[in-house]
Amino acid sequence: MTDTLRGLFAAEPVSRHFGDAALIAAMARFEAALAHALADAGIAPRAAAERIAACCAALEPVGPFDPAVLAPAARRAGTLAIPFVRALTGAVARDDPAAARWVHWGATSQDVIDTALALQSDAAGHELLAELTRIGDVLALLADSHRQTMMTGRTLLQPAAPVAFGWKVAVWLAPLPRLRMRLALALEDLRVIQFGGAAGTRAALGGAGDAVAGALAARLELADPGIAWHATRDRVGRLGAELALAAGALAHIGRDLSLLMQGEVGEVFEPSGEGRGGSSAMPHKRNPVGSMLALQAGLRAPGLAATLLAQQAGEHERGLGTWQADWWTLGGLFECAGSAAAAIGETLDGLRVDAAAMRTNLQRTRGFVHAEAVTVALAATLGRPQAQALMEQVCTEALERGIELSEALDALLQTDPTLVGAVPADVRARLFDPAAQQGDAGAMIDRTIAAWRAG
Amino acid sequence: MTDTLRGLFAAEPVSRHFGDAALIAAMARFEAALAHALADAGIAPRAAAERIAACCAALEPVGPFDPAVLAPAARRAGTLAIPFVRALTGAVARDDPAAARWVHWGATSQDVIDTALALQSDAAGHELLAELTRIGDVLALLADSHRQTMMTGRTLLQPAAPVAFGWKVAVWLAPLPRLRMRLALALEDLRVIQFGGAAGTRAALGGAGDAVAGALAARLELADPGIAWHATRDRVGRLGAELALAAGALAHIGRDLSLLMQGEVGEVFEPSGEGRGGSSAMPHKRNPVGSMLALQAGLRAPGLAATLLAQQAGEHERGLGTWQADWWTLGGLFECAGSAAAAIGETLDGLRVDAAAMRTNLQRTRGFVHAEAVTVALAATLGRPQAQALMEQVCTEALERGIELSEALDALLQTDPTLVGAVPADVRARLFDPAAQQGDAGAMIDRTIAAWRAG
Amino acid sequence: MTDTLRGLFAAEPVSRHFGDAALIAAMARFEAALAHALADAGIAPRAAAERIAACCAALEPVGPFDPAVLAPAARRAGTLAIPFVRALTGAVARDDPAAARWVHWGATSQDVIDTALALQSDAAGHELLAELTRIGDVLALLADSHRQTMMTGRTLLQPAAPVAFGWKVAVWLAPLPRLRMRLALALEDLRVIQFGGAAGTRAALGGAGDAVAGALAARLELADPGIAWHATRDRVGRLGAELALAAGALAHIGRDLSLLMQGEVGEVFEPSGEGRGGSSAMPHKRNPVGSMLALQAGLRAPGLAATLLAQQAGEHERGLGTWQADWWTLGGLFECAGSAAAAIGETLDGLRVDAAAMRTNLQRTRGFVHAEAVTVALAATLGRPQAQALMEQVCTEALERGIELSEALDALLQTDPTLVGAVPADVRARLFDPAAQQGDAGAMIDRTIAAWRAG
Amino acid sequence: MTDTLRGLFAAEPVSRHFGDAALIAAMARFEAALAHALADAGIAPRAAAERIAACCAALEPVGPFDPAVLAPAARRAGTLAIPFVRALTGAVARDDPAAARWVHWGATSQDVIDTALALQSDAAGHELLAELTRIGDVLALLADSHRQTMMTGRTLLQPAAPVAFGWKVAVWLAPLPRLRMRLALALEDLRVIQFGGAAGTRAALGGAGDAVAGALAARLELADPGIAWHATRDRVGRLGAELALAAGALAHIGRDLSLLMQGEVGEVFEPSGEGRGGSSAMPHKRNPVGSMLALQAGLRAPGLAATLLAQQAGEHERGLGTWQADWWTLGGLFECAGSAAAAIGETLDGLRVDAAAMRTNLQRTRGFVHAEAVTVALAATLGRPQAQALMEQVCTEALERGIELSEALDALLQTDPTLVGAVPADVRARLFDPAAQQGDAGAMIDRTIAAWRAG
Repeated sequence: MTDTLRGLFAAEPVSRHFGDAALIAAMARFEAALAHALADAGIAPRAAAERIAACCAALEPVGPFDPAVLAPAARRAGTLAIPFVRALTGAVARDDPAAARWVHWGATSQDVIDTALALQSDAAGHELLAELTRIGDVLALLADSHRQTMMTGRTLLQPAAPVAFGWKVAVWLAPLPRLRMRLALALEDLRVIQFGGAAGTRAALGGAGDAVAGALAARLELADPGIAWHATRDRVGRLGAELALAAGALAHIGRDLSLLMQGEVGEVFEPSGEGRGGSSAMPHKRNPVGSMLALQAGLRAPGLAATLLAQQAGEHERGLGTWQADWWTLGGLFECAGSAAAAIGETLDGLRVDAAAMRTNLQRTRGFVHAEAVTVALAATLGRPQAQALMEQVCTEALERGIELSEALDALLQTDPTLVGAVPADVRARLFDPAAQQGDAGAMIDRTIAAWRAG
Repeated sequence: MTDTLRGLFAAEPVSRHFGDAALIAAMARFEAALAHALADAGIAPRAAAERIAACCAALEPVGPFDPAVLAPAARRAGTLAIPFVRALTGAVARDDPAAARWVHWGATSQDVIDTALALQSDAAGHELLAELTRIGDVLALLADSHRQTMMTGRTLLQPAAPVAFGWKVAVWLAPLPRLRMRLALALEDLRVIQFGGAAGTRAALGGAGDAVAGALAARLELADPGIAWHATRDRVGRLGAELALAAGALAHIGRDLSLLMQGEVGEVFEPSGEGRGGSSAMPHKRNPVGSMLALQAGLRAPGLAATLLAQQAGEHERGLGTWQADWWTLGGLFECAGSAAAAIGETLDGLRVDAAAMRTNLQRTRGFVHAEAVTVALAATLGRPQAQALMEQVCTEALERGIELSEALDALLQTDPTLVGAVPADVRARLFDPAAQQGDAGAMIDRTIAAWRAG
Repeated sequence: MTDTLRGLFAAEPVSRHFGDAALIAAMARFEAALAHALADAGIAPRAAAERIAACCAALEPVGPFDPAVLAPAARRAGTLAIPFVRALTGAVARDDPAAARWVHWGATSQDVIDTALALQSDAAGHELLAELTRIGDVLALLADSHRQTMMTGRTLLQPAAPVAFGWKVAVWLAPLPRLRMRLALALEDLRVIQFGGAAGTRAALGGAGDAVAGALAARLELADPGIAWHATRDRVGRLGAELALAAGALAHIGRDLSLLMQGEVGEVFEPSGEGRGGSSAMPHKRNPVGSMLALQAGLRAPGLAATLLAQQAGEHERGLGTWQADWWTLGGLFECAGSAAAAIGETLDGLRVDAAAMRTNLQRTRGFVHAEAVTVALAATLGRPQAQALMEQVCTEALERGIELSEALDALLQTDPTLVGAVPADVRARLFDPAAQQGDAGAMIDRTIAAWRAG
Repeated sequence: MTDTLRGLFAAEPVSRHFGDAALIAAMARFEAALAHALADAGIAPRAAAERIAACCAALEPVGPFDPAVLAPAARRAGTLAIPFVRALTGAVARDDPAAARWVHWGATSQDVIDTALALQSDAAGHELLAELTRIGDVLALLADSHRQTMMTGRTLLQPAAPVAFGWKVAVWLAPLPRLRMRLALALEDLRVIQFGGAAGTRAALGGAGDAVAGALAARLELADPGIAWHATRDRVGRLGAELALAAGALAHIGRDLSLLMQGEVGEVFEPSGEGRGGSSAMPHKRNPVGSMLALQAGLRAPGLAATLLAQQAGEHERGLGTWQADWWTLGGLFECAGSAAAAIGETLDGLRVDAAAMRTNLQRTRGFVHAEAVTVALAATLGRPQAQALMEQVCTEALERGIELSEALDALLQTDPTLVGAVPADVRARLFDPAAQQGDAGAMIDRTIAAWRAG
């Protein structure tokens, strides 16, 4: 809403594509390309097109194109396109009144607004995909290099069973190939011109509409969508949902990092550095600021995505109030995803992993994280129901006496004659060794990295 | 997100209170008041407080206070407070290093951010309440002056029964007393300082915390909330919901106006004027741009309100990512409500009501809007079940033959001997007179206006 | 929430796949397939697997499987899986205690819950795709058969320019190929087993996890996802967003139909019939109940989708509160989309199109819908700026004098000597003929139908 | 959506008021009261009213009132009221055809639906307020009894400064007086009849509408709202937001409890017990199931509340699709709040607080939680800027050498001659004593408990 806030919850390189300057430049690109497309189709003189295009290329956000001048006029008109086109027509007319007649020819306000949205989304999406790719590559390396770094797996915020940190990282990585692919598809869907004129049928151009549209699309390197999408906003809604999912996947990493960075856990640390994550009251603090930014983005995105999903049922050929703020809301979603990507990218680059702390925490569970393994070992000879009942007993004993689970188990195995041989010696030897309880983690890491690299 | 868009979907006088300058000014007010409060409590020297306050009063958004300088530092720190306090400390220290030590004494980052939010909300809320009051007053006049302007009442987008336009306006007015009162309560709830220091207990001030807080609150004309609300954000969530309800009530007016302004209906018209509601493709068009702005605000607000409602469960003494963007989101909600209020206020001021068109449309329903009245008249003698069955028959007849409902009714009454006297002559005479079917509308209008004026 | 409501805002064939019975059956399918998969991998005896599978196949929602019995136990346990597995173990054990030990072997609660979600989504999605296909086919026929049914195109709820009803229908159809394809992709993403055991690594199965998972997936005709997705919920979030988009596209049709069905417009009519769209107060009313149901679904879906998008950042290996209600929320989204599809399908099947009313309404615009065409015609000789200025003048004249636009235009052309020849006679002849202003509508319809049929 | 799920994410006593039976009973209450109100106003014979009321009182959800029979008819009609009123009329007519004519006299479908919503909300709200009161009372006791139970205060998920557990509990309690008061106000707003007839003006009753409405309201112990609220849904939206805030405040408690219950923290424990919080894979686990249920409710509620906020701009006298599912959505919000209240109530009742673990964790921070206190002590003599710089140095030293903060501080104080006397001996003695750093916590607890008890 204001530049200060923008700097706090937005980040380059994504955010620059949704600023004032980017919007005006994208609108100018549309008008320049349209003028040339009209010339391509033999409607406008090429010289007029060149004049218009030159004017668009030279356009600066000052004078009549100053956002502060355009904004109130846009509010009165109900669309930015009207004052913008008027300013552009005036600018062209100063040098060449004959050329000015071809400005915006055959187009309606929403054509330039929506095509600008498509151009801006394309540019911002390109940057975001690059950032996601960089993050995925870092995660793949982390996953691969921490295959044997055993730590406490935690479910429902309770210690569950041992996992490798590399496997945990692979879980973070797992949705990224889908995200990248689906985000690319959603961006592809929106990589289209909007060009329909008054009601969407290109009637103003007689039979030449398709030819102009084809040339316009080619010049902007966008597709021609077959039919006007003034009133069907699924492209925008779907892209918004993908951006929210991207923010969510990054927030998920931020969630885990910030939990692992708790004082009592201390297993990973965000990078520190000049001015990073400080506190105005507590000089010692190193706040997980990268995680915070990602979590904040993940919290803001769903409401924005819901706004776009709620704008699908606009009235008739162009709705009232349902699409007018799409660039605002979609821009907000790009900011969320871009801010989260920048924050997590920077965090992962400097992440410090404390394998010793992970090991220590694992040991501090007093063996309870091996409960599943013990149950399975018992169940192999006793069956699951009896094994579970037995383990309830062993766990209760260990909890009440404050002893290691292994100690409680051995006590039971030795005192109950019916349990002789219930756990063979070689099985017992590996029962409380985290590294022996990796299951298919290695193969899962392999598959996840392969899926990422194949994506 | 950008100034251009801000001008389109935001409006004065509300929006100025959530810009960069307003935020920095509010933060400066906090620091100035805190310095004096520390002096009030005998902690800091009065001279130091005066130096700090003077520096805050003279503070301009340039140099170290330039938003473009503060923003990247704020992002690194995870909060705007840190670079702001550093810049303020530096500014004070240039003239008086001894005074500089008292800047931000006893406070934490969130204290200044949240108190700034409270100050900004108070100012913006004050403006919004004034706008709602102005709108309510206009609605009350409209309701009163159109008590006899009969039009088609429409339910589920179908003609239902006659209503007076004044009664319809009274329905728009009805929620405003509640809105104004509840919005005032929500603003009152947030009219509090935040002042807790590191963990919220004011431990840094030893036993003097309450005294400082009391003085701080008095100087800012805010209340002292009893306990820190760093982690309990219901005040912000509740205010957000009220703002969304305000936007919704205004969008409701916009919805009805825009439907009544449809070409085929033409019963009311938004004011026209230079540059208002034009179309870049269709010179004749007068778009309902005020309604559009209100509807757009009504669509954007729920997602923003949901974001605030979703941030209630932050972690421990101050959450991670759950409150940091509250001013961003709450500011967006103020923009929604303020934009809708400005748009509807301006629209109502110039609203043109076409009573003749209302009458004509009422007649064009061929009497079907009187079906309830006829049914009731029949039911008085025949009972509701038989009356309804009969009316089904009459309606079908009228629809199929394309005749007036009155004609079909009379035909039936005359041909069926069992129906003689079913509708007494005096009743029949008024059956198809809209003005005779006002029910309690007059009293409802009276009560609604009275409730508004009493509110 | 209750069956009554469920019947009102849900519809077969989609809704049956998210009822109690469907959930319990899907959980039973998982346990049966798991037992056999354990046998396939040589872990459990085949006879035990057959016993378990037989028990699952015979399972009825009564006795220990009565939802009313399971529910409170599920709430205490925090998951439905625990009382369900206990009941199943008990049921198997009654006949074959040895077999009972293999029930749920190697799995965790979320494995059965999430795989049930995948099975239920697959079944419900299959039905929904069939319904969307049927609707798209009807729309394609409607679009094709109404290529020349000219009506008023409306933008921002104002008359804009003539369009064919068939073209309008093609706009409704346009998003359906994307929707169908993306929905199919999202369903494909979720067509996976969940099978990870305690922490997600399948450690309980030693090295046999992958073999069991492969067999399990094959038996359920689902894919094996490479790594556990307990904590990465993008599949669910993405499917939810697609369902909201489907509901939105159907709500869009409902929006337009209900606006066209307004008393003053009367261009299309929902089918009537026994008990359809009645009013308890007004016997004549035919409410657009199909549109209402679709609009309602379109309004409810975004909030539900946002809930799923907001659940992406669960804690560690399995989050607390973030995935537990996914089937509830996703089921609600299937209900929205399924209810909207049933309502719009039924509505389109019986839709009555009144081409004469469309023509009449078009004429009632007094030629203003041809303003773009006239402007273009003038602009071809005068340039767009001058043409627009002229048209402003003509429109104002026509509006103020209440005359046809053509009359005002001709008056001007005849009185102003500088305008002689501004509109050639052959152009003038077709200027106010809607059918001559189709632009590229025909080709757009062709392309849209082709895209649908190719999809 | 299904009974099983309902049992898991809903809870008595709140949830029973939004089931099928409760809805039908509430509708019957409306019709019975209406019949008597008509008699009160001299419109219907008292005998007819008594017949209708007797039929309503005896009504069971079977036969024509079976939800499974009503539901499909309701879907066709677009409202449950039509088949319900038809069934009721039939039931009355069986005994007394003359009485049957007065069933639903003067009312429209939405009148009975909305009044039922008001009655159900009143009943459910009453229960919820009682539960919140019980929870608040428990929190007040907990806060009072743990004033000296010192623990680590945590901000941004990092150790910050010592706080008392009782103070933390007081923070949880702080929003409850506001919640209770505002929820009571929102419930009060909705404690109104809906009674407007076809278009809302009570035209069907001639001049007797207000008299009937008054009698109806009196008999239902609801207020008469002055004007129909068919189209103004702020009451429902506001109540929905309050329910989401209630769920959020309870989720906040669940968030903190679950974080404190983490294996590495172990400071509080949810009660255990037969079947509570188990794991199907890990027999030892005690999952924080109460916290999970509250967090889940807190996650689901915002999307539902947003749906109600988004339904404010319905069309004309009664909207299409905008209010029809209000009871569904509001019922869902009551379920969220009721489920969270039941879960947190039960959890707090059996909460185990481990003061020793809190102390141990506090000590394990190696004194860093006292950094603010040390900074303040230094700043008193050196000023805040120099003190902060010094503390940065001390903290870095302590972190790098892995020593206690006190040790690093003392080393510095002793080696730097310029710092002699920087911390007076008596101050130094209390610097690392948590109990000496309570600040205003005691007074804050007092004020919070007093505010609760005064509420």
